[in-house]
Amino acid sequence: MNVLIKRIRAGIPGFDNLIASGIPEKDLVLLSGTCGAGKTVFGLGFICSAADKEHGIYVSFEEEIARIKSTAEAFGWDVDRLEKTNKVKFLKYNPYQLEDIIEVIENNIREIGATRVVIDSISAIGVYVKDVTELRRMILQVSEMLRKNNCTSILISETIAGKKSLSRFGVEEFVADGVILLHNMLIGGEYRRGLSVWKMRSTDHSRKIHPYKINSDGFTVYPEDTISFNPTA
Amino acid sequence: MNVLIKRIRAGIPGFDNLIASGIPEKDLVLLSGTCGAGKTVFGLGFICSAADKEHGIYVSFEEEIARIKSTAEAFGWDVDRLEKTNKVKFLKYNPYQLEDIIEVIENNIREIGATRVVIDSISAIGVYVKDVTELRRMILQVSEMLRKNNCTSILISETIAGKKSLSRFGVEEFVADGVILLHNMLIGGEYRRGLSVWKMRSTDHSRKIHPYKINSDGFTVYPEDTISFNPTA
Amino acid sequence: MNVLIKRIRAGIPGFDNLIASGIPEKDLVLLSGTCGAGKTVFGLGFICSAADKEHGIYVSFEEEIARIKSTAEAFGWDVDRLEKTNKVKFLKYNPYQLEDIIEVIENNIREIGATRVVIDSISAIGVYVKDVTELRRMILQVSEMLRKNNCTSILISETIAGKKSLSRFGVEEFVADGVILLHNMLIGGEYRRGLSVWKMRSTDHSRKIHPYKINSDGFTVYPEDTISFNPTA
Amino acid sequence: MNVLIKRIRAGIPGFDNLIASGIPEKDLVLLSGTCGAGKTVFGLGFICSAADKEHGIYVSFEEEIARIKSTAEAFGWDVDRLEKTNKVKFLKYNPYQLEDIIEVIENNIREIGATRVVIDSISAIGVYVKDVTELRRMILQVSEMLRKNNCTSILISETIAGKKSLSRFGVEEFVADGVILLHNMLIGGEYRRGLSVWKMRSTDHSRKIHPYKINSDGFTVYPEDTISFNPTA
Amino acid sequence: MNVLIKRIRAGIPGFDNLIASGIPEKDLVLLSGTCGAGKTVFGLGFICSAADKEHGIYVSFEEEIARIKSTAEAFGWDVDRLEKTNKVKFLKYNPYQLEDIIEVIENNIREIGATRVVIDSISAIGVYVKDVTELRRMILQVSEMLRKNNCTSILISETIAGKKSLSRFGVEEFVADGVILLHNMLIGGEYRRGLSVWKMRSTDHSRKIHPYKINSDGFTVYPEDTISFNPTA
Amino acid sequence: MNVLIKRIRAGIPGFDNLIASGIPEKDLVLLSGTCGAGKTVFGLGFICSAADKEHGIYVSFEEEIARIKSTAEAFGWDVDRLEKTNKVKFLKYNPYQLEDIIEVIENNIREIGATRVVIDSISAIGVYVKDVTELRRMILQVSEMLRKNNCTSILISETIAGKKSLSRFGVEEFVADGVILLHNMLIGGEYRRGLSVWKMRSTDHSRKIHPYKINSDGFTVYPEDTISFNPTA
Repeated sequence: MNVLIKRIRAGIPGFDNLIASGIPEKDLVLLSGTCGAGKTVFGLGFICSAADKEHGIYVSFEEEIARIKSTAEAFGWDVDRLEKTNKVKFLKYNPYQLEDIIEVIENNIREIGATRVVIDSISAIGVYVKDVTELRRMILQVSEMLRKNNCTSILISETIAGKKSLSRFGVEEFVADGVILLHNMLIGGEYRRGLSVWKMRSTDHSRKIHPYKINSDGFTVYPEDTISFNPTA
Repeated sequence: MNVLIKRIRAGIPGFDNLIASGIPEKDLVLLSGTCGAGKTVFGLGFICSAADKEHGIYVSFEEEIARIKSTAEAFGWDVDRLEKTNKVKFLKYNPYQLEDIIEVIENNIREIGATRVVIDSISAIGVYVKDVTELRRMILQVSEMLRKNNCTSILISETIAGKKSLSRFGVEEFVADGVILLHNMLIGGEYRRGLSVWKMRSTDHSRKIHPYKINSDGFTVYPEDTISFNPTA
Repeated sequence: MNVLIKRIRAGIPGFDNLIASGIPEKDLVLLSGTCGAGKTVFGLGFICSAADKEHGIYVSFEEEIARIKSTAEAFGWDVDRLEKTNKVKFLKYNPYQLEDIIEVIENNIREIGATRVVIDSISAIGVYVKDVTELRRMILQVSEMLRKNNCTSILISETIAGKKSLSRFGVEEFVADGVILLHNMLIGGEYRRGLSVWKMRSTDHSRKIHPYKINSDGFTVYPEDTISFNPTA
Repeated sequence: MNVLIKRIRAGIPGFDNLIASGIPEKDLVLLSGTCGAGKTVFGLGFICSAADKEHGIYVSFEEEIARIKSTAEAFGWDVDRLEKTNKVKFLKYNPYQLEDIIEVIENNIREIGATRVVIDSISAIGVYVKDVTELRRMILQVSEMLRKNNCTSILISETIAGKKSLSRFGVEEFVADGVILLHNMLIGGEYRRGLSVWKMRSTDHSRKIHPYKINSDGFTVYPEDTISFNPTA
Repeated sequence: MNVLIKRIRAGIPGFDNLIASGIPEKDLVLLSGTCGAGKTVFGLGFICSAADKEHGIYVSFEEEIARIKSTAEAFGWDVDRLEKTNKVKFLKYNPYQLEDIIEVIENNIREIGATRVVIDSISAIGVYVKDVTELRRMILQVSEMLRKNNCTSILISETIAGKKSLSRFGVEEFVADGVILLHNMLIGGEYRRGLSVWKMRSTDHSRKIHPYKINSDGFTVYPEDTISFNPTA
Repeated sequence: MNVLIKRIRAGIPGFDNLIASGIPEKDLVLLSGTCGAGKTVFGLGFICSAADKEHGIYVSFEEEIARIKSTAEAFGWDVDRLEKTNKVKFLKYNPYQLEDIIEVIENNIREIGATRVVIDSISAIGVYVKDVTELRRMILQVSEMLRKNNCTSILISETIAGKKSLSRFGVEEFVADGVILLHNMLIGGEYRRGLSVWKMRSTDHSRKIHPYKINSDGFTVYPEDTISFNPTA
């Protein structure tokens, strides 16, 4: 059923194998995981790996841009060059000044002709939004703006350690077109990292938990391997 | 006990075998599952598979119609033809503008003589309704209107991953005539899909969890197979 | 200890065997179960099976009378005849118009000399009552009125799937004289139905979970059989 | 350590064996259990078994006195004689008219020289009291009044099925001198009744769960037997 | 690391073995357990066993002094003599009249030169304090006053049966210098008592659960024994 | 990927082995654990072990400085000398007087040229902050100030025993650059201490639970050993 849909490569080694060679174009994908799962590294790989061909915007709500860029550099991305050539743009926004944020992101998208966007994180916004109704409506509006501008996007979402939810506020996953879940599983005395694709619109995706690593090569998924895990609680 | 009741075929391969060859006519069936379970695909199959004989309305509260139609097309439904011949109609409604929604749906039902309706999703409405009392009353009113117009309907309901509930707000299942539950079970290191019929009015239905798949043929249930699953928590 | 107490037969095959040949006269029995458990079928059996001798009232708060009657007919009860001969009466009431409900039910009881009443459901009322204090007091008032009119009654109560409670609001079971619990147990990959008597005033009742079925004969309990079930959570 | 303390026999066969031959005089003992556990039968046994020597008051907040008396009669207590000879008194009180309740109970205690009191139930009062602070203070006041009048008392407390608490509101057990817990344990497919003494001031009490039965002889505990039960959740 | 710290013996047989021969002087130790765990007996042992040398104050917020003294006498303490010789003082305070309580306790400490204080219980106070912020601040103030007056103190804390917390309000343990936990573990069909030291400032303490008994000798811990317990939930 | 990042040694024996020889300079690390886990000892080791070269500030919100210093001395740190030579400074602050706290800490950092800061604890502040939104924003501001002043910092966080969370309020871990978790695991009848690194920015860190001890040598981690632990709930 994947024939008619244009897809883009995520730029994360091993990951595209899990989802029929790519994320459907213009889709909004939720990337959920606890703190320390490597969500920012995944987001940077999504933006930077393809930046020479597909321009990208990285929107940060809490982390300073200098630090995000230094993280990107640690993984080998030459972000200075990408920024100077208007291929990548990093935006920092205060999560409690949201009035005109959609307009600002849209202007930046148009300025560099971006087709990839990462929003890091929707949870940081969520704690400032007054209720889930408001948050759900807001994500819908962001999503429409991004699609209208032909952007494929990653929405980063924090989950709380020890809770089995897909998102912090329980509405984010329902307005996204895809959901990628990063697991941190205590097996024996060791925490093991696994990635699963919970949802990907119109895509025959893997339904297994695959191990992943974060090292000097960035975020790498092992599509051939599975982590067997039977949670008892 | 099924003799006296008129039934319609759901149009989902393998599914009707589970419920005595069909859904009781004019019933309102709740279809519950987490994000990514394929609820929209089930709903589209329900509307499109029978559309040449029984006209249908697909009401979306958040997803844009263009995208729902493209999803339908990916599964091989010629929705353009069905729309042009007034056999299927797609409606998009803002969940926070609910005042006249029942009237609007009713007008559309009458316009094309629809006997099948999908509402996608009651959960999207629910987050805008001020309390469960209001939501329960509203579902009852929708249900009465649909029945009065001789419609058999699917009410799509989101459930939260990791919670063992039948619906988001805990009242939806009690006002529905039937409840179909889509399971996403982590067995070993793999998520497996299963469907069970929790309730179907006046029907000897299967009480097992049957595997289902979503591929280019759409939503297919395997009525001969069962997924053995003993949740420990 | 059962000698002095007058009892009535519930009219559910196999059920009376569990409770010393009957429900104590004038008692109010809570019937709890999730959606799809067959609570309405049990209630109809209670009213219709004995209607030629003991007249009965079936009070519905959400379901239309036409549908309840059609359900009864599917199980072979000739409700038209019973209604015309003033042996059974079906009342529909809006749960949000409760002011004079006790008086209305009482008038109907007197009109046909009813000694059996089913209220379907207390949960539908409960969502409109402002707090559990109010609900508890209201059930007490209903209970007193029913007893004063010599009625033995079934109070239908919804429980939420996945929660181990006896009622929706946590007060209903304490104001009832008896509690019957309908279980839906996931054993392997199959949901199995079981009935247990949690409480029956002044009665040596079974304390086991007995399988039951709903088919063209209606609601049948198997008093000789037990479902072994050790919930782990 | 039991030597100096005056004790009274509970009047429940087998029970006194568990607590060094009796309840410390003037103590307030909480009796906790779910609906259907037989708390009223225990309370009646406590009052009626000793009534010829030690007069008693049974205070009911919801159940009508006629029904409590008929329950007592079913277990063989001649409550009419006990009432006429001023040995036992049954009081019914609306839980929402609590202002002068302590005074009323005290007057009744003095009138018949009662030394045993049962309050059935503190939970019925609790739902009308505005917060746990108020409830805690109120139980303390009741307790002081009872002690001042030389009464040994049973305070009946409802617990919710499926929760592992000792009381409904989480404060009752801390203001009582003793706590008796009635268990309803699902073992295999059967509910089994057990009683344990959670606390008894200045008493070497059993710390096991002992089976108990309710039959025509009333409430009987089997002090020699134990129910082995390892709850997993 | 224990060399520099002055310590006092708790006066509970077997207990001091667990904590390097004593409680650090001037520390505030939280003693947590469910109702019936013997917290008062532990507190009385702490005060009375050393009273000839180190004077002590026992502050009760709910229990009448006469009853606490009778409990102490049942364990063989001659509290009358201790009171008359100004070695021990029992104070009763209403938990809802807290304004000047710190001053009153301080005056009493100075009056008899007390160096040991038991407060029974912080939970009784906590239900009257309007929020955890206020409670936390109040415990800090009590703690400072006690330390300023060179008192080593036990703060008794109720925990709710079935919850795995260290205190009732979730802040008490963080303002205490030590935490002793009393366990009531259902193993097979029997409740077994165990004591563990969760925290003791600057002390190499046992980290095992040790059985304890309460009999005519008072509260006795068995430092050589361990209760093996693996909670599953 | 660690090449480009300047790191500092934590000063906790065995700990630096787990995180590629050090904490990234200017990072804010959350140190989470229940009461009694030794968080203060870890914080003191972080400040005092390096104080001759890198000056440090220890900010306490509840514990008196005299006691923190006496704890440090018990572990062999000569805090008097360190204070007199302006190498270490201890600050005590009331958590409910937060207005100018960031300014005060900053002034002290500049006064002694500190590059290490411990805040003990963020949880003590959190209970006085009106909501998690406010707390999250405040931690961000503290974090920016510390980084601007070139400080590497430890933020101490209380977790509640029996809950599997990384922090008290569920936002602290998301604004920190690293998260260290102290475990207290009940295995058999014994509580065992373990440390795991949940997150450390741009660092290949151990993902195992390593045993640690607190004795006269202070806080020692055993990087070669692992505690095997499979929580069932």
